[in-house]
Amino acid sequence: MSKKIVIVGGVAAGPKAACRVKRLMQDAEVTIIDQDTLFSYGGCGIPYYVSGDVSDEAELRSTSFHMVRNENFFLNAKGVTVKGGTRGVSIDRQAKTLQVEDVASGEKSELPYDILMIATGSRPFVLPIPGADLDGVFTISDLHKAIEIKDRIAKQKVSKAVVIGGGAIGLEMAEAFKDLWGVETSVVEFMPQILPRIVDKPFASMVTKHMRDNGVDIFLGEGAEEILGKDGKVTGLRTANRTLEADMVIMAAGVRPRSEIAAEAGLQISPLGAIVVNERMQTSDPNIYAAGDCVEIMNLVSGKKLYAPLGSLANKEGRVVGDNMAGIPTKFKGGVGSFIMKAFDVCIAATGLSLDVALAEGFDADVALNAPSDRAHFFPTEAIVCFQMVFDRRTRKVLGLQGFGPMGDGISARINAAAAYITMGATIDDFGTLEMAYAPPFSAAIDSVNAVAYVADNLCDGRLRKIDFDPFLSWMDDFTTQADWCALDIRHPNEAGPCVDKFGAETWLAIPYNEIRNRYKELPDDKKLIILCDAGTRSFEIQSFLESVGLSNTLVLSGGFSMLRRIGIDWYPA
Amino acid sequence: MSKKIVIVGGVAAGPKAACRVKRLMQDAEVTIIDQDTLFSYGGCGIPYYVSGDVSDEAELRSTSFHMVRNENFFLNAKGVTVKGGTRGVSIDRQAKTLQVEDVASGEKSELPYDILMIATGSRPFVLPIPGADLDGVFTISDLHKAIEIKDRIAKQKVSKAVVIGGGAIGLEMAEAFKDLWGVETSVVEFMPQILPRIVDKPFASMVTKHMRDNGVDIFLGEGAEEILGKDGKVTGLRTANRTLEADMVIMAAGVRPRSEIAAEAGLQISPLGAIVVNERMQTSDPNIYAAGDCVEIMNLVSGKKLYAPLGSLANKEGRVVGDNMAGIPTKFKGGVGSFIMKAFDVCIAATGLSLDVALAEGFDADVALNAPSDRAHFFPTEAIVCFQMVFDRRTRKVLGLQGFGPMGDGISARINAAAAYITMGATIDDFGTLEMAYAPPFSAAIDSVNAVAYVADNLCDGRLRKIDFDPFLSWMDDFTTQADWCALDIRHPNEAGPCVDKFGAETWLAIPYNEIRNRYKELPDDKKLIILCDAGTRSFEIQSFLESVGLSNTLVLSGGFSMLRRIGIDWYPA
Repeated sequence: MSKKIVIVGGVAAGPKAACRVKRLMQDAEVTIIDQDTLFSYGGCGIPYYVSGDVSDEAELRSTSFHMVRNENFFLNAKGVTVKGGTRGVSIDRQAKTLQVEDVASGEKSELPYDILMIATGSRPFVLPIPGADLDGVFTISDLHKAIEIKDRIAKQKVSKAVVIGGGAIGLEMAEAFKDLWGVETSVVEFMPQILPRIVDKPFASMVTKHMRDNGVDIFLGEGAEEILGKDGKVTGLRTANRTLEADMVIMAAGVRPRSEIAAEAGLQISPLGAIVVNERMQTSDPNIYAAGDCVEIMNLVSGKKLYAPLGSLANKEGRVVGDNMAGIPTKFKGGVGSFIMKAFDVCIAATGLSLDVALAEGFDADVALNAPSDRAHFFPTEAIVCFQMVFDRRTRKVLGLQGFGPMGDGISARINAAAAYITMGATIDDFGTLEMAYAPPFSAAIDSVNAVAYVADNLCDGRLRKIDFDPFLSWMDDFTTQADWCALDIRHPNEAGPCVDKFGAETWLAIPYNEIRNRYKELPDDKKLIILCDAGTRSFEIQSFLESVGLSNTLVLSGGFSMLRRIGIDWYPA
Repeated sequence: MSKKIVIVGGVAAGPKAACRVKRLMQDAEVTIIDQDTLFSYGGCGIPYYVSGDVSDEAELRSTSFHMVRNENFFLNAKGVTVKGGTRGVSIDRQAKTLQVEDVASGEKSELPYDILMIATGSRPFVLPIPGADLDGVFTISDLHKAIEIKDRIAKQKVSKAVVIGGGAIGLEMAEAFKDLWGVETSVVEFMPQILPRIVDKPFASMVTKHMRDNGVDIFLGEGAEEILGKDGKVTGLRTANRTLEADMVIMAAGVRPRSEIAAEAGLQISPLGAIVVNERMQTSDPNIYAAGDCVEIMNLVSGKKLYAPLGSLANKEGRVVGDNMAGIPTKFKGGVGSFIMKAFDVCIAATGLSLDVALAEGFDADVALNAPSDRAHFFPTEAIVCFQMVFDRRTRKVLGLQGFGPMGDGISARINAAAAYITMGATIDDFGTLEMAYAPPFSAAIDSVNAVAYVADNLCDGRLRKIDFDPFLSWMDDFTTQADWCALDIRHPNEAGPCVDKFGAETWLAIPYNEIRNRYKELPDDKKLIILCDAGTRSFEIQSFLESVGLSNTLVLSGGFSMLRRIGIDWYPA
C-alpha cells in the first residue's frame, strides 16, 4: 500500500525531502502544506532581489532551468502535491493525523499521514520595543515582505533606512539599500562588533570599515530602544546614544525556530526552542521527522548543539529525511558552522568556531593570523587576504578558520577546504601539509591555509610570541605619552619613515628586515620590542634571530600593517 | 657546537628547508649550493613570464615584499650562505663531506656536513628523436632558457611554435605563445588526450576544445618523430601524420628526478629513479634528507608511491626537512595529487585519482558527473561548471574529483575542499553533507560537490543507470542509420526541436520534463531510452519515474548537453 507522507512547510527542507522521497518511492503519496502562497524559494536571495541583482522575485522561486516552482510544477514534474495557503494546526500522533487550516477561509480539515515531516522553519525575532508595529518596520521573513520593501524603495518612498542587527541578513540588506538605491543607511548592532559569534573582532572590524567606506553608517554597542513614528508611520530609531531618521526600519535581530506545532504535540524541544532530532532527522516520535530552521543539529567541532538556520543545511537535512522516509538509513551528522558573505567589494567567511565561541566552550583556544598573497605574488591579479586560524593548544586541533579578502571565490577556496578538514578533526599539522591545488594564477606555492597553519604551529610550540590586535591598538592609543615599549618597524625605510617622523626615532625604531643581523646592537635591551611588518612573517623571523642574540623581550603583531590598514587606524600618518 | 648543514639545490625545497632550520637553530651554519647562478625562483611562473603577465624574470626570484632572493638576501636576511654556480659532485657518507665543483672554473673543493639535504629537483625528459639538439629547441628547465625563449619571441624571431607534450607546462606555454604574442602554436601529444592520468577524457576534451577555439592546434595520439632543421636551426616537427613548420619547438614531455648524486652515494632509489624518503623526508642515510622533485612521496589515496614534481609540494616537504634537521619530528605523510591549470578563459582542476588511474590501481572505481551552477542560479555572475567524482563502489570512498569551469577561483573552492576531505578518507556520504560556505554570490544552497556526491550515491546504490560520454558519442556517430535506442530529450521544446528535426521524431523523442508523468505512454517499450537534459539531474528524476511505470530500459547521460557542448559535438544542429 502506498505510504502517505505529509510535510508541513514548503520552503527548503520540506520540498527537498518531498522530491527525494518521491523519487525513491514513486508510489508514495506526498503532500506539502505551506501557510504561504509563495513557497519553495531561495530566502537567502532576498537581499539580492531587493538590491536589484535579481530582478524578479519569481527567479527566487524558479529552478535553474527557469521553471517556477508553483503547485503545478510540483504536481506535474515532481508528482508532489503542494497545498499553499494551508497552515498546520496540530498533530494527533495517536491517530496519525495533521489538522490543517485554510488560511484564507479558516476552514479546518485533517490530513492522515504514515510519516510526517515538520519543516516549519524560523520566524524573525521581533524586538520588544515601542514602535515595532509601525508601518515601515519590516522583518525579512517571507517574499511578500521582500516585494513590499523593494516596491517602496523603487517608488522612492525610502530615503533613509535603519537596519537593526549586524548579522549577515542585516548587513546584506544594508548593502542592497545603499549600493543600488543610494538609500542613506545605518546599521545598529547591540553587540560591540558586527557578526558576533560568527567571526572575531579583527575580522568584524575589517568588514565594518569597508562598509563605512562605502557609505553605510554602523553603530556598535548600541541597542535599539524605540522605533519612532508619526501617524502610524516610522520616522526614526532611537538608541541610547542617538536618534536616527528613517523611512524604513529593518528588524534583522536574528530568528527563532518555529516549533510550536511540535511542542504542542509533545515532541522533544531544546532549551532554545528548537526541535530535537537524531542523526536521521527523526524527532522523539520516530514517525515524525523534522529539518531546517526549526531543528538544532550537532556542532561537529564542539560536540555541542548548534542552531544554524541556513538554507544550505536545510537542503542537506531535507535529503537525509527523504532517504530515511524511504528506508535508506542516511545520516546527517551535523555541521561546522560555515559562513560566507559579500559586503560590497569584499568577502568575509568563516568555518568552525570563532575564538570567542571556542573559549566559551572551554577549549584551550588561541588564534594565528596572517595576511599573505592569495596567489603567486608575481601574478597580476594577486591580492592580500587575511586569515585567522582558531586552534586548541592542547590537542593541536584546528577549531576554526576566518578569512577576509576581495570579492570572488578566493576566500571560499580556503574556507571550504578548512570546513572539510575541520569536519574530519584535522590538526595544525594536517593543515600545514594540505595539498591545495597550485598554479600561479590560483594560489601561492605555500597556500594561505598552509601558511596560517605554520603560524599556528610556531605559536603552539612557543616559538612565536605575539601581541593581538586589541592590546596593540589599546597601547597605540597612548603610545606617545607612556609607552614602556618600542616599535621595531622592519619594513622598507620609505614605509617606516612616516611613523618614525610622527612617533620619534627613540620609540619607533626602524631597521629594515635585511639589516637586522648586522644592526641588532642598536636595539635597546631594556624595553619590550613590538616587531612590525606588513604580514607578520618577517617579524617572526626577526624575533627568532633576536632571541638567539639575547633579546627575547619581543612580540610580533601577526597580520601586521596589512590587517591594521583594513581594520582602520586613526593614528597612522597620512 | 653549531651544526653544519649543507643543502644541494637552491630552487624550492632547498631554500625552504634552509630558512626554516636556520630560524629553529640560529647557531647552525647553513649552506646552499646550486649549480645555477639564478636560484630560489618560482619555476611554475615561467609560462607567465613568457606570456608577459610577469614582466621581469627577477619577479620570479623575489619575495612578496619585492626583495630579490640573491646571495646577499640569503646572507643578510636569512643568515644562510648560498653558493651559486656550484655543483654537487659526490657525497662521502663516511667522512660526511660533499665534494663540490665551481661550474665556471671547474675547481673542486669539499664541504663537510653534519646534516646533508639533497634538493636537486628534476630535469626535463628529452625525447630521443633526431633534431633534439637543434637551435630553437627548448626545454623548460631553468630561468636562462625562459629568458632566451621570451627574448626570441619579443624580437619577433618566432612566428610558429610547436609544443611537444600536452601536460600542464606544455599547455601553459602554448597559451603564452598564442595569447599574448600571437605565435601560431601547435601542441603534439602522444597520448589520445591531453593531461593524461591527471584528468579523464571528457575533462581533457573540454580543455582541448577551448584551446582550439582560442587558436591553439592540438594533435592527439601523435608522437613527435623528428625535429626538422636547416643550417642547425629548427624548421619544423614531423609526426606520424603530418609535418608542422616551426621556428621554435618546446619539449615539455615530462620531467625525471635528478637523483644521480644520491644513487652514486648508495642511497635507496625507487624504480622510477626518485630518491626514497620516509615521512620525515630522510633518505636511507638518516643524516641525509631529500625533498622536492627528486623524491617520491606516498599517494594518500592509493597507498602507492607518487612522483609529483610540484613547487607546492617541494615547499611543504622542505619545511618538514627543516623541522627534522632541528629535531622537531614533523611528518610529511604524502600527497593526493592536487592539480589546477588556467587555459585561456577556463580553469581545469583535479585532486586524488582519475578514473583511469583508479582502475589501473585496482579500485572498483566509477565516476559521477554533473554540470550545475557554480552559485545561486539567480545570481548574476552564475556560470555552469562541470564536476566528476571518482569513487570506489565497494567502500564508497571518494577517490578523486575533477572540475572544469570559467577562470576564477570557483573551481579551486571545490577541488581544495575535496583535497582536504579525500586526504582524510571521506566517503560519498561525507561529501553529500559537507558544509560548504553558502551565500548566493558564492555557491548554490546545494553546492556542486554535494550535488555530485548525490549523483555518486544514486549510482553506487544502483538507482541511477548512466551512459558515459565515450559510448554515447560512439553511438551518435552512426545514430541515424542503426540505432537500437531512442533519445528521450526532456529539455524545453525550443531546445529539443532542432535535434528532432535533424534525427526524426521516431528516434529523437522530445517530451518536456514536466509533461512526462502525463505522457509517458507515448514512449516505446521495445527500445532503450537515453534520457537527455542539460545537466543530467532532471534525467535521473525521469528515469526514477519511468522505472515505476515499468520502463526500466533507460540510461541517463550525466552532465548532459552542458558537458556535450563543452566537449564539442559536430552532430549537434547549428
